[in-house]
Amino acid sequence: MKSHRQELWFEVPSRRGYRNITPEVEAAVRASGVREGLCLVNAMHITASVFVNDDEEGLLQDFERILEELAPHAPTDRYRHNLTGEDNGDAHVKRQLMGREVVVAITAGALDFGPWEQIFYGEFDGRRRKRVLVKVIGE
Amino acid sequence: MKSHRQELWFEVPSRRGYRNITPEVEAAVRASGVREGLCLVNAMHITASVFVNDDEEGLLQDFERILEELAPHAPTDRYRHNLTGEDNGDAHVKRQLMGREVVVAITAGALDFGPWEQIFYGEFDGRRRKRVLVKVIGE
Amino acid sequence: MKSHRQELWFEVPSRRGYRNITPEVEAAVRASGVREGLCLVNAMHITASVFVNDDEEGLLQDFERILEELAPHAPTDRYRHNLTGEDNGDAHVKRQLMGREVVVAITAGALDFGPWEQIFYGEFDGRRRKRVLVKVIGE
Repeated sequence: MKSHRQELWFEVPSRRGYRNITPEVEAAVRASGVREGLCLVNAMHITASVFVNDDEEGLLQDFERILEELAPHAPTDRYRHNLTGEDNGDAHVKRQLMGREVVVAITAGALDFGPWEQIFYGEFDGRRRKRVLVKVIGE
Repeated sequence: MKSHRQELWFEVPSRRGYRNITPEVEAAVRASGVREGLCLVNAMHITASVFVNDDEEGLLQDFERILEELAPHAPTDRYRHNLTGEDNGDAHVKRQLMGREVVVAITAGALDFGPWEQIFYGEFDGRRRKRVLVKVIGE
Repeated sequence: MKSHRQELWFEVPSRRGYRNITPEVEAAVRASGVREGLCLVNAMHITASVFVNDDEEGLLQDFERILEELAPHAPTDRYRHNLTGEDNGDAHVKRQLMGREVVVAITAGALDFGPWEQIFYGEFDGRRRKRVLVKVIGE
């Protein structure tokens, strides 16, 4: 069994943002040399998400709106977590709703995706360097 | 390490629907010959979900109601994604809330499940042929 | 390829509760002898969740509040599932929103975590013994 580990670092310049990281994950899979296996991609921070959806700008705005409806950033005193001095209580909830990780099959050395699947990094508390883990196992 | 890949195809005749796909996944695990490992089951489309819950008709209706409360299909102009000409903005959000995939342990050649766990395909934009990927790795 | 399977049993004394199970999962990884691989941790019940977030009491209260907003326990006749005689329709929905499972990378024999990642068991229908599955594969 082969395994490969790689960190991807990002700094989203605003509080929230969405970035298509599929090319970086594809590069990690190629670097792994794995032909058949699984690829785990997860946020290493608890105010960010990794998810699979469509790379369409309007859709990303829809996610943004709905997450703000379900867990609005303000008023920040709505979150007990913010009593710690943080202002990111909403970001923890948003990440929970969008998910921490995806596991993608690797077949014939490539991500085994349907026609529109793309991997996104969802940032909910940005403006600092944060990272994603890619772990590949297989043969 | 062994690996096995299989696609399951479905055509849900209505816009939304839920289908218990546990028997098909069990068959794929048997076909794999894997005794100890992991089984990834994911929607290959971004308007559908694979999840584990209870096979109880009332519960599936509860999911349906709550997903419509959180991300209603209409009015369709509520979703910027629908400016592309699509009418499935809600389906992308519903899939995100329900999840893309499940990873299930394989132990002694079978899905290692608790008493009520069943795997479902959740369709949010049906009336066409769509597919689920089953990828098994292990020994 | 090595594999290791372990069940963790819990009895949360109230209907809902959150428990940090990271130490138990770490012990299972050590017991596995796996140095490089993947660790699946999933609820074996469909009214409970396994998720990764911050071990901060206020945040857990925020999750509790928001889950009650999105899928309140009462009135119980709001859920068709409860027509079966159960009163846990909300618990199935809460688990769905929080997620069934996490997959965590194992690197150099340990859970490969970012600075604040902790694994939680989220109970939404407690007061009885329930269990979590840990399945480790790798080398």
